[in-house]
Amino acid sequence: MSIVNNPVKGWQGVPFSSVNINDAFWRPRLEVLKNVTISVCLDQCEQTNRIANFAVAGGLQEGKFEGIYYNDSDVYKVLEGAAYALMTDRDPELEAEIDRIIGLIEAAQEPDGYLCAYFTIEAPERKWTDMEKHEMYNGGHLIEAAVAYYQATGKRRLLDVACRLADHYDALFGPGKRHWAEGHEEIELALVKLFRATGEERYWKLALWLLEERGHGHGVGAIWDKPEWGPAYCQDDVPVRDIREVKGHAVRAMYLYTAMADVALASGDAAYIEALDRVWAHTAERNMYVTGGIGPSQHNEGFTSDYDLPNESAYCETCAAIAMAFWNHRMNLLHGDGKYADLVEREMFNGALAGISLSGDKFFYVNPLASKGEHHRVEWFHTSCCPTNLARFLPAIGQYAYAVTEDGIAINQYMNSETTINAANAAGGGKVQVLQSTAYPWDGRVAITILPEQAGKFAVRLRVPGWCRGYRVSLQGDDRIGGGADTKTDKGYIVLNRHWMPGDTVLLELDMPVEAIRSRPEVEANRGRVAFQRGPVVYCAEGAGNDGLAYDEFALSAGAPFAIEHREELLGGVTALRGQTSEGKACSLTPYYAWDNREAGFMQVWMREAEDRQLYRF
Amino acid sequence: MSIVNNPVKGWQGVPFSSVNINDAFWRPRLEVLKNVTISVCLDQCEQTNRIANFAVAGGLQEGKFEGIYYNDSDVYKVLEGAAYALMTDRDPELEAEIDRIIGLIEAAQEPDGYLCAYFTIEAPERKWTDMEKHEMYNGGHLIEAAVAYYQATGKRRLLDVACRLADHYDALFGPGKRHWAEGHEEIELALVKLFRATGEERYWKLALWLLEERGHGHGVGAIWDKPEWGPAYCQDDVPVRDIREVKGHAVRAMYLYTAMADVALASGDAAYIEALDRVWAHTAERNMYVTGGIGPSQHNEGFTSDYDLPNESAYCETCAAIAMAFWNHRMNLLHGDGKYADLVEREMFNGALAGISLSGDKFFYVNPLASKGEHHRVEWFHTSCCPTNLARFLPAIGQYAYAVTEDGIAINQYMNSETTINAANAAGGGKVQVLQSTAYPWDGRVAITILPEQAGKFAVRLRVPGWCRGYRVSLQGDDRIGGGADTKTDKGYIVLNRHWMPGDTVLLELDMPVEAIRSRPEVEANRGRVAFQRGPVVYCAEGAGNDGLAYDEFALSAGAPFAIEHREELLGGVTALRGQTSEGKACSLTPYYAWDNREAGFMQVWMREAEDRQLYRF
Repeated sequence: MSIVNNPVKGWQGVPFSSVNINDAFWRPRLEVLKNVTISVCLDQCEQTNRIANFAVAGGLQEGKFEGIYYNDSDVYKVLEGAAYALMTDRDPELEAEIDRIIGLIEAAQEPDGYLCAYFTIEAPERKWTDMEKHEMYNGGHLIEAAVAYYQATGKRRLLDVACRLADHYDALFGPGKRHWAEGHEEIELALVKLFRATGEERYWKLALWLLEERGHGHGVGAIWDKPEWGPAYCQDDVPVRDIREVKGHAVRAMYLYTAMADVALASGDAAYIEALDRVWAHTAERNMYVTGGIGPSQHNEGFTSDYDLPNESAYCETCAAIAMAFWNHRMNLLHGDGKYADLVEREMFNGALAGISLSGDKFFYVNPLASKGEHHRVEWFHTSCCPTNLARFLPAIGQYAYAVTEDGIAINQYMNSETTINAANAAGGGKVQVLQSTAYPWDGRVAITILPEQAGKFAVRLRVPGWCRGYRVSLQGDDRIGGGADTKTDKGYIVLNRHWMPGDTVLLELDMPVEAIRSRPEVEANRGRVAFQRGPVVYCAEGAGNDGLAYDEFALSAGAPFAIEHREELLGGVTALRGQTSEGKACSLTPYYAWDNREAGFMQVWMREAEDRQLYRF
Repeated sequence: MSIVNNPVKGWQGVPFSSVNINDAFWRPRLEVLKNVTISVCLDQCEQTNRIANFAVAGGLQEGKFEGIYYNDSDVYKVLEGAAYALMTDRDPELEAEIDRIIGLIEAAQEPDGYLCAYFTIEAPERKWTDMEKHEMYNGGHLIEAAVAYYQATGKRRLLDVACRLADHYDALFGPGKRHWAEGHEEIELALVKLFRATGEERYWKLALWLLEERGHGHGVGAIWDKPEWGPAYCQDDVPVRDIREVKGHAVRAMYLYTAMADVALASGDAAYIEALDRVWAHTAERNMYVTGGIGPSQHNEGFTSDYDLPNESAYCETCAAIAMAFWNHRMNLLHGDGKYADLVEREMFNGALAGISLSGDKFFYVNPLASKGEHHRVEWFHTSCCPTNLARFLPAIGQYAYAVTEDGIAINQYMNSETTINAANAAGGGKVQVLQSTAYPWDGRVAITILPEQAGKFAVRLRVPGWCRGYRVSLQGDDRIGGGADTKTDKGYIVLNRHWMPGDTVLLELDMPVEAIRSRPEVEANRGRVAFQRGPVVYCAEGAGNDGLAYDEFALSAGAPFAIEHREELLGGVTALRGQTSEGKACSLTPYYAWDNREAGFMQVWMREAEDRQLYRF
């Protein structure tokens, strides 16, 4: 029996490598990512002996393991990001460096396929004795890097290492073999990727088995030195089908749900889908910051209780925001519902993007929503998962822009780009080239040119972001198609189901007003406060650019208007909001993602709400 | 001692006759007003013997008084409207007809100046015996018509009638003479107008005395056949300086506050200003519909208790909405605060405008916010104050567009127009021509060209409407002036205080998103309901254009987006909002002011609110 027995009639992602981004917002970031971020991350991996650990494990050099047992993963994540960067920009020098590192990794792999530098060097006798020691977590990241590098270059060397490792797991674990529920999820989603890249169903089955292992009392359980967190910390408290609430370590939880969504997409397992829907609602409605940040507590790097969303002490690990995007992308494919793509967007422009400096060489691990001025990005961390997660998240951003639907294509994210989508379900069954022209996220107008290989009837879905209350859609200047009989909206998408001719151009104009956001009343930290968003971008007040304002000693009115000013010279080019505080002082709001890129000073997303000037009400 | 002893440093209105409106929204309405509405109102006044009553009173023909004692006022109000129309479009035929009617009015005036056809014909012995019988109310409307006709044509004949009448009042009433507090206010604001037109301070003093008469127990008191309403029905319950709450008959209350604001503007009397501020807040925050409608009850044509704002049975007399505009225009001048101009705008595009059909020949007296389909405009009423109020309100709409401020000019209402403002306070002290180019209210872009007679420094204030959360303002393409050091916002206005050269052009772009409005929770009628507004225009769902929807049997989500479609062929050219109900049915919202201009059917402003599709919250 194939496990892929009852696939959901969901959507399919597109390979991001097929999306050419020439966007004023994203293109400079991708350049910095490739030219600065990947390079500094590789340097750090070198300097901290993260790379050397492989050489030591492989017997290529003398020494001890340096750092912590999950350090292998950082190297893998940079390789994954470098592979993505290479897909769009081949670079022989970078490729040679990666090949060198791959050689070390290959050397570190033991003859039976085992690969984890820490255990090989320091504690071979303790292999597979502690599910919380990230052996498979490391392996998962190796697999993701290997698939990416294979897709980027066609080179199988790292992929072969990954397959040997996966085969080793498969030999040790599975039905009738040893139990295992990895303390830090990652391997599960990686094995699905490996299945897709190789066609080997064993990998898929192992992913499913690993998911099903959880919550039965023979998995990782509670961490020995943190018994008070219980098995929920590692999502080992209930079987995955019974998950109702988001719990524990935020990144782990998100990686778990991502893998569950991958499985649900292919298996159609209703219990998985129901569990995901429940836990999504619980996460998105009660346990998420306006920035998309999740996991308020430093204590467990994760969730606490519903509506506990403090601002200054918000942990909001960058990795958790990135993982929210991973999960929500899968949920969007699973349900064909724009509300999930909304959250991908929220992370892209806020929670995840804040993790990296405009210069590309400094990073936040922790992303508070308020700071008195002492929180700054740094170059590296002892546990440096966040920089390396950014290094692989950002260069792959194009994959979120499009999807293939049952009856055509969907445009999920707006960015100046070109792609050719293999729209097997579209009439004509052929390829559809799509050109997007837009100044998003600063402007809501998007011109979309559809160039099907063959003219034919199919549906083009355009996401109407959740923040948008009004839009105009016109085809070649006919502004009536939005309401014409040939269109409807469905789950957050305008559906243009019609006969498409090559070169047909849709102009989508999304109203992009400033929105004053009030938190739900249960969130104590935000009572009497207001935040501002324009389009997908959440704004903040920073000390920088706000001379005369002091932390939390000013108030803004939800009803007061802002002057909207696009300033190319500011923070890499941002649209700033200029207004006045209730104390009559000038106030400039700038995008949250860009904070801490000027001189040190306070920052606030949720600001004291001033009463409106006495106004009429109904 | 001059009564005009301590004028508030407020703003000054501009004569609407100086405002040339060439606006796609207003111009066709002004044409219909002049060519249809004034003509049908004059015909109705003829057919119902409202005009003949004057001839009978003047002994020019035999007969009895026909109709009701306040019918004179309808004739005066049409004359006032005709005069406004003549100011911008001279029309010898119309003018001759008015002159003929003026001859009859003149004939009806008694030798001592008394003028009120009902009493002259039917009950001369009962003159000045019942303050509720509208003798001075009629007189007030005569005065307003006389001033308008004098300004339009330079002809003094009707103005002389008005002055003789005012002199007659002044001879009978005032300090040391007889007490009088007119049951239906109107004379007070009219006497201020007469003072301004003639310079005669006596008229002003009489207006002030009439205001001060109220609330001392020797005024109109309770109406004899409606003792249960008490003296508050006619605003005779407290001295005007002690007014705290809006009470009684809505039109009467508004006319009173309008006169009080006129007095406060010139006298600077702090007690008047405080009373007005109190009662404004009480009206606008607790006793006003989203349409700007006021006075929920048919019973007393007026106010009941706070937050009592039922929709189907909403009375919302057209005259009251018009009078709200009158009052708020004065409040705007008094305080230089855009929140009052916001309400003028709300009446212009909603509460008042709904009173007239697109064809200009049918009228609402009562303006509910919900109807099962039995409420329709008609050609005339026994008490026909509303058609004749529309006939004088709409042709004078230009006066609300501009004001003269202490340090320059203010642009209060946006409409395609040209005007020359005598900006005595502007640097250079000269005239400033202003050109506005806009497709308001359907589009928020307004190009404003400033042509001062002499270049110089002065302030141009641009109102940011209360519904607007974000704007761009640029000068000759410099999009930075909005936040530049030379600009600020003040009481709802962008203040551009700079050296103006002839031809300087400001582009103001007001974000004009669809806004989902929830009522304050105290309003029981609107609990669980949502209304929609875009820019200044409040929308409704009508049976017409919504096949398949039934009254109150559908729900809309506040978060769902609408397709925004401008449809020139629909309802005289409107921007419609196309969306879907929570039941998945297509739904079209159209402007409230345009309802009941298609086939009969239901109408709702406040619609059942559907829960959003499960969405994230913070």
